[in-house]
Amino acid sequence: MRMFDIIAKKRDGGVLSREELEFAVMGFVNGQVPDYQMSALLMAIYLRGMTEKETAQLTDVMAHSGDMVDLSAISGIKADKHSTGGVGDKTTLVIAPIVAACGVKIAKMSGRGLGHTGGTVDKMEAVPGTQTAVDRERFFAQVNEIGISVIGQSGNLAPADKKMYALRDVTATIGCVPLIASSIMSKKLAAGSDCILLDVKTGNGAFMKTLDDSIELAKAMVSIGQHNGRKVAALITDMDTPLGHNIGNSLEVIESVEVLKGHGPADLTEVCYQLAANMLYLAGKGSLEECRRMAEEAVASGAAYEKLKQMFAAQGGDVSVLDDPDKFQKAKFSRPLLAAESGYLVRMNTEMVGNASVCLGAGRITKEDTIDFAAGIVLHKKTGDKVEAGECLATLYADHEEKFAAAEEMFRAALTFGPAPEPVPALVMARVTEEGVERF
Amino acid sequence: MRMFDIIAKKRDGGVLSREELEFAVMGFVNGQVPDYQMSALLMAIYLRGMTEKETAQLTDVMAHSGDMVDLSAISGIKADKHSTGGVGDKTTLVIAPIVAACGVKIAKMSGRGLGHTGGTVDKMEAVPGTQTAVDRERFFAQVNEIGISVIGQSGNLAPADKKMYALRDVTATIGCVPLIASSIMSKKLAAGSDCILLDVKTGNGAFMKTLDDSIELAKAMVSIGQHNGRKVAALITDMDTPLGHNIGNSLEVIESVEVLKGHGPADLTEVCYQLAANMLYLAGKGSLEECRRMAEEAVASGAAYEKLKQMFAAQGGDVSVLDDPDKFQKAKFSRPLLAAESGYLVRMNTEMVGNASVCLGAGRITKEDTIDFAAGIVLHKKTGDKVEAGECLATLYADHEEKFAAAEEMFRAALTFGPAPEPVPALVMARVTEEGVERF
Repeated sequence: MRMFDIIAKKRDGGVLSREELEFAVMGFVNGQVPDYQMSALLMAIYLRGMTEKETAQLTDVMAHSGDMVDLSAISGIKADKHSTGGVGDKTTLVIAPIVAACGVKIAKMSGRGLGHTGGTVDKMEAVPGTQTAVDRERFFAQVNEIGISVIGQSGNLAPADKKMYALRDVTATIGCVPLIASSIMSKKLAAGSDCILLDVKTGNGAFMKTLDDSIELAKAMVSIGQHNGRKVAALITDMDTPLGHNIGNSLEVIESVEVLKGHGPADLTEVCYQLAANMLYLAGKGSLEECRRMAEEAVASGAAYEKLKQMFAAQGGDVSVLDDPDKFQKAKFSRPLLAAESGYLVRMNTEMVGNASVCLGAGRITKEDTIDFAAGIVLHKKTGDKVEAGECLATLYADHEEKFAAAEEMFRAALTFGPAPEPVPALVMARVTEEGVERF
Repeated sequence: MRMFDIIAKKRDGGVLSREELEFAVMGFVNGQVPDYQMSALLMAIYLRGMTEKETAQLTDVMAHSGDMVDLSAISGIKADKHSTGGVGDKTTLVIAPIVAACGVKIAKMSGRGLGHTGGTVDKMEAVPGTQTAVDRERFFAQVNEIGISVIGQSGNLAPADKKMYALRDVTATIGCVPLIASSIMSKKLAAGSDCILLDVKTGNGAFMKTLDDSIELAKAMVSIGQHNGRKVAALITDMDTPLGHNIGNSLEVIESVEVLKGHGPADLTEVCYQLAANMLYLAGKGSLEECRRMAEEAVASGAAYEKLKQMFAAQGGDVSVLDDPDKFQKAKFSRPLLAAESGYLVRMNTEMVGNASVCLGAGRITKEDTIDFAAGIVLHKKTGDKVEAGECLATLYADHEEKFAAAEEMFRAALTFGPAPEPVPALVMARVTEEGVERF
């Protein structure tokens, strides 16, 4: 087998076999296939596409390029969840405890934030003392004992994806559905859960800007799961506006606790119930309606919040800050941003809002940057709201006053006001399962 | 400017500007653009194509990546010729003297053979003593004095093409018209002649297998010339069968001399007259009919053969071998191949015939191989001929008898016999000029 022939086959629109995909991907990982051949293949894939089966096999080959986490030491059904990344997206901290409280195991590895989007591991570390670098034995033991653990990615998961992504990033081959889908799903397959719920964010703050593109990506990922013996479904959720009101690590933990205590913001609460219900449904806990009711009851009874506290306690976190958010370390400085004129807030550029939060210290521009857990933004007005001149739009938090100028400028530039309200996108726009696509 | 954006633009079907092409090509030559980005761009070009203007600009950028030979020290109009490569293609040795005898200057750089196709420089060196590595001053002086010089490529002509071709060769991006056309024409533009006649070989022994593909390539190259101020035309000529009867370096010189003396094989003679007439026409020597007559007269008068001898003499060659071919060093061994059965020779796989000749020592598999000038094949039967069992099909020549077995096997496998004659392709299938395409 020669890489040249594999490139030529895909260039001419052919369908690569599992053996050919394995030759190309493993050769690239091992250094036997040079990067200039891999980039030619990736561009050919970008422009010629891949069949569903081909994409599924590529994903499986990528997953098997490193450790395949074996969760069989954990009894029961294990569910995982993945978000394509958004601003103010703290849903994992809400739905993982809900689902665990309903008896489905959560043995989840999460990532850190980069650029305008945050990451669950950073948010967990905002709770003082919390350990996210946990060895596999303790991780399994915790899940067997209390049903839930969320830790940082450890081990050598899908190294092919890491190497291929770095090459795609510099050769303009990122935005291609089979390659995005295989990148995400290779890590999810390697992470070992039986059920995987995908939250595909759509809108100006998300990687996928349109509903149709998001549905296409979701269908590709559900198909990959189906071909590889996992139960996968996806919700397409709105990211034309940040989720909830709080952006920033401690601020997002506080808002998650509010949802679990039953008094979180309506948008975040609704999205979390739908995500949790779909995870429970995938895990076979009943009809979607029954699963939704189970999720609501887990919140109403306090069981879900109790599960969150158990998880943090098991991982060394100081849970007293969850009961009393005033105990979180405060940002040294805050600045209210007042509306200059009256009108309706008709659009928010969510990516710019996320970047304003990064300016304040809440996120990273490069992987080496450190995070200020207390920094961030609390939104007092969201898309669709009526605003009177002089009303407070948002409060910024930072450890240095000089950070406010750039963040304020970026935040204000992200907002568009109009004389009348305009339609606001639905929170959950579609649901994609093995059975098909439901648009809402 | 970023290479990333240039790749993305072409990936999405955009038209690259001269500045973008220069950034990519010169960055690649200088090592600032890594090969993995260039190969992604090349695959995007392969699949998205290029406009005529874009192809012309790419070619000009590639030509300017190295020396641009300035032929202004040579008075009069300078004409060049390029063949896309064939088996038994000795036309340069015939038409360059004809054209020079008619008063158009030939200051030509030629290549060496590789694989199943030969090269003019090797053929010239078959004449003992001939120098093909000639410095520019002597090269110019010889052309000014006698009107003709054919030497090996010297200097740093279109290094971008060399580096890009090497990358295309391993990334399955060779067979793309804008890339083939710019590769050929970048060297021709850099070589400095005013008029360039292209001989696009078509058929099983050529790079382009079909007439339509060849016409497409010819049109692209004529357009490149037009955009860059050169007069360019192309003949599409048949390479479904070797040209003439002799294959191998000394053997091809001998056959060239036969044509110049007026008694060469009909097919080779006719192709040479048409090529020479078109070169003279490009150089403004009259109508195509007038130019054809001039070419025929240059042969009939002996002026063209005299020009060939002048050229070899000026470059140190022993011209006595031209007057008396028996003086060429002979191959130690020869082997006649007899027909096993009667029938019509209906097809020859020309590439296989070329490879049989390489087996005998007449060509190179790698650039480092040395050549046996005396080795080769003389064809006694060609496509369309009637053959009786026991008649001689061809004679093989080599310096070791062991070479015959593999060469004979390959040669015989190249031939297809049938019970009745089948139509033979025209020698010259089409003519492509700035005015359009004429099919014959």
